[in-house]
Amino acid sequence: MAEKIHHIGIAVNDIQKSLNRWGQYLTFKKGDIEEIKTRGVKAVTLEFDEGPLIELLEALGSETPIRKFIDKHGEGIHHICFKTDDLDLKVRELKKKGVRFVQENPVSGAGGSRIIFMHPDNLNGVLIELKEEKE
Amino acid sequence: MAEKIHHIGIAVNDIQKSLNRWGQYLTFKKGDIEEIKTRGVKAVTLEFDEGPLIELLEALGSETPIRKFIDKHGEGIHHICFKTDDLDLKVRELKKKGVRFVQENPVSGAGGSRIIFMHPDNLNGVLIELKEEKE
Repeated sequence: MAEKIHHIGIAVNDIQKSLNRWGQYLTFKKGDIEEIKTRGVKAVTLEFDEGPLIELLEALGSETPIRKFIDKHGEGIHHICFKTDDLDLKVRELKKKGVRFVQENPVSGAGGSRIIFMHPDNLNGVLIELKEEKE
Repeated sequence: MAEKIHHIGIAVNDIQKSLNRWGQYLTFKKGDIEEIKTRGVKAVTLEFDEGPLIELLEALGSETPIRKFIDKHGEGIHHICFKTDDLDLKVRELKKKGVRFVQENPVSGAGGSRIIFMHPDNLNGVLIELKEEKE
């Protein structure tokens, strides 16, 4: 069961301004801005000719993970998302290997997908999202 | 002239230990560890079934960009690399749009490629590498 990189999430202060700026410099197809209230974010995806999506993330409110991230680190790359075809199996395997997760169990992500975040302490400070996507 | 995401660079303290750890949790084909003395790094690439490479980067010496990055931010995601087929043209276009670069002109990167870094101030704190790769 191999993993594939699905997107790179970037924490930004203002999603519309950021989208305009990225569009000035790079060529991509932009998705619609989506509010994911359960995760406290507005998100939009940039689709390049090849490779994963870039996801720009703006915080919805002050007590949200993206706001806290920006307050601590400034704007910047927030996480890498890998897709996997069986999320529950992957999480069980990783828990056996001692991996810590941010959530106890998978939660709802963009587009109603099932996701979970591995704690950054597992892999060199990198926050990794695992997203279920059936083959 | 569209860009494509080529790899995601991650700053780590110990490349061999990190490689072992990533291999415990995720499935990929690993490249050889390469010393790029002109950039002050040891690098290795992890190739997944789909999507860009992950590049683990260990500093060669204390006055190198990766060492300074880790001293300031800790280990973590360092940059996103886009490939482009005509680097000089792309750099000229971006300079006209006011983009600041870390180097004045392209320099040598991994495998003898030509690369340049856009300053993180241009795009939400994200350090972006542009790498020439002819179609």
